[in-house]
Amino acid sequence: MNISITKTTNPKQKPDMNNLGFGTYFTDHMFIMDYTEGKGWHDPRIVPYAPLEMDPASMVLHYGQAIFEGLKAYKAKNGHILLFRPDKNMARVNSSNERLVIPSIDEGFGVQAIKELVNVDSDWIPDAPGTSLYIRPFIIATDPYLGVRPSDTYKFIIILSPVGAYYKEGMNPVKIYVESNYVRAVKGGLGFAKTVANYASSLKAQVEAKHSGYTQVLWLDGIEKKYIEEVGTMNVFFKIDGEVITPSLEGSILPGITRMSTIEMLRKSGIKVTERRITIQELYDAHAAGKLDEAFGTGTAAVISPIGEFNWDGNVISVNGGKIGPVAQNVYDTITGIQSGELEDTFGWTQIVK
Amino acid sequence: MNISITKTTNPKQKPDMNNLGFGTYFTDHMFIMDYTEGKGWHDPRIVPYAPLEMDPASMVLHYGQAIFEGLKAYKAKNGHILLFRPDKNMARVNSSNERLVIPSIDEGFGVQAIKELVNVDSDWIPDAPGTSLYIRPFIIATDPYLGVRPSDTYKFIIILSPVGAYYKEGMNPVKIYVESNYVRAVKGGLGFAKTVANYASSLKAQVEAKHSGYTQVLWLDGIEKKYIEEVGTMNVFFKIDGEVITPSLEGSILPGITRMSTIEMLRKSGIKVTERRITIQELYDAHAAGKLDEAFGTGTAAVISPIGEFNWDGNVISVNGGKIGPVAQNVYDTITGIQSGELEDTFGWTQIVK
Ligand SMILES: Cc1ncc(COP(=O)(O)O)c(C=O)c1O
Ligand SMILES: Cc1ncc(COP(=O)(O)O)c(C=O)c1O
Repeated sequence: MNISITKTTNPKQKPDMNNLGFGTYFTDHMFIMDYTEGKGWHDPRIVPYAPLEMDPASMVLHYGQAIFEGLKAYKAKNGHILLFRPDKNMARVNSSNERLVIPSIDEGFGVQAIKELVNVDSDWIPDAPGTSLYIRPFIIATDPYLGVRPSDTYKFIIILSPVGAYYKEGMNPVKIYVESNYVRAVKGGLGFAKTVANYASSLKAQVEAKHSGYTQVLWLDGIEKKYIEEVGTMNVFFKIDGEVITPSLEGSILPGITRMSTIEMLRKSGIKVTERRITIQELYDAHAAGKLDEAFGTGTAAVISPIGEFNWDGNVISVNGGKIGPVAQNVYDTITGIQSGELEDTFGWTQIVK
Repeated sequence: MNISITKTTNPKQKPDMNNLGFGTYFTDHMFIMDYTEGKGWHDPRIVPYAPLEMDPASMVLHYGQAIFEGLKAYKAKNGHILLFRPDKNMARVNSSNERLVIPSIDEGFGVQAIKELVNVDSDWIPDAPGTSLYIRPFIIATDPYLGVRPSDTYKFIIILSPVGAYYKEGMNPVKIYVESNYVRAVKGGLGFAKTVANYASSLKAQVEAKHSGYTQVLWLDGIEKKYIEEVGTMNVFFKIDGEVITPSLEGSILPGITRMSTIEMLRKSGIKVTERRITIQELYDAHAAGKLDEAFGTGTAAVISPIGEFNWDGNVISVNGGKIGPVAQNVYDTITGIQSGELEDTFGWTQIVK
């Protein structure tokens, strides 16, 4: 399919590239493609960024039939624009689609659409260290219909947002509240899909954790409230007694692309990484035995976020003296180095936009 | 607050009132009210039904922060327009809001907004037996922002849809598939709230049940897959050994207003109704012992939907010879009679629009 391009005649004023924050500014253009039952995905186009005209009865507004993705483009020193594993994001689109009964997309075409859009808005990519262009592909159900069933029409949209460095003032470990009241997702539900429902269900716990001075919550499994799942918008890793452990994918957590990359990278460098179920009690026991060396989250936004403290029902433990540990630092340096083109990509993870 | 009214200058052609279906046609006007952090809910207005202009980054499209309601207006023989317990729907809005971290609304004002809108579009209310005007209030998060946190802006919208009789060809009991694979909601999650996530998570199971010839699924609890929860968009009741039983509200099912009304009505007429946890095994045991007399769902769309068959992992049982039972018929006649003004409302359930 050919992507038609209509350029804006009215480019926006660029924001202060030294004060971008996350997800606040959007570029001049967006990608849109429509789906109609019987006709398939059609009419892919890059058009000026503008409000969508949505019928108030659009199914996405009522029944949450929608999925999304998040990845980043980086401007390398040599002028290349690099994407980090966009094929994995497009594969996850289809895995989310399958669960949400949304028609699948052509993954290669999805990557192409990202590249063409990033290319059109390439002067929006910031280049200060740690900054990037955040890419948000998403699909929404658009039938104007109030019966509960999958929609017959959809829109696949990609928007772009220049984002600032996550760690402006150095990499400070975060404080995490272990959530034993609210549940984000449960096996048999939507947890493994990147879909709106999982974020809606997380808001209240997140707000309550913030009120108590915690950055995010650590989710436990919804059945026994015992097994560690993930943190906010990150997967989670622990270094216990020399071994790196991360919860296995059991259907209720998101299979993060940073998680996958972290595992591959650590294994390649000879570090043992185990994916298995791990209870919060085991974590606390390891801490008590002096064997919990590191804890960190992995995700597209921060790449790596070291965890300095956990609070589980009032029991507070501090990890690695509240400082970032060597494994987390190594993963961070390697992945961000590859993403920004400063380190050689021996994994074949990056793709050049142009 | 005063509701401003802007009438359409271009009224739509009315659909064939004998072939309305559900949720397909929308009236000439809608109600909108905005929320801005610091300012509260403001600018309530009735305006022509039209597409919403939505920023592609609107939070509802990405993180599902949204809730909705569903109720009906009926045209009585004496010309009155009747609403059924709208105060309960507005109370449920606030209970859903609380879970989704959406600012609460003034419940009385919500009812007033419904009445004014229904009044403006009163010539859209069909009057054939069983028909009604479906009312869909909903709230969506509108910040154009991609960070995961509650929005600072919202829209509260009400749209109206004339709907046909649910039982055109008589009240045929439905076939229900007992779902033991997928989970809709779990304790600690969003199950008790009327929010988009719960419907997104139900789609796949519903589609698979339809493929196997079943109308809807019966959800079991997400923890033990043992306790009966609810059916599609209905709560569920059983008559076992002369007693009427419905699952108690444990946080994972919607507290239906038809459920509440059914309980009140049956108790008033001297029938014992018990709200308690009940397992699917108990249901099958009761059937085997010849004691499962009736099964039916309750909800705004159908009011009562008798269940004639269950399929639990391939074990099929038929209830009451696949016919509607006397309790279900009595509840249906009483509630629909009160809703349409044909029976005296000794409960004080109905409110007159004008
Ligand atoms: C719930 C959740 N878990 C984990 C992650 C990490 O996934 P990724 O590494 O692909 O960004 C994300 C996304 O950022 C997420 O939203
Ligand atoms: C999941 C669910 N359960 C039960 C019901 C029944 O609730 P009510 O009787 O208030 O319509 C509904 C709504 O119609 C529903 O969506």
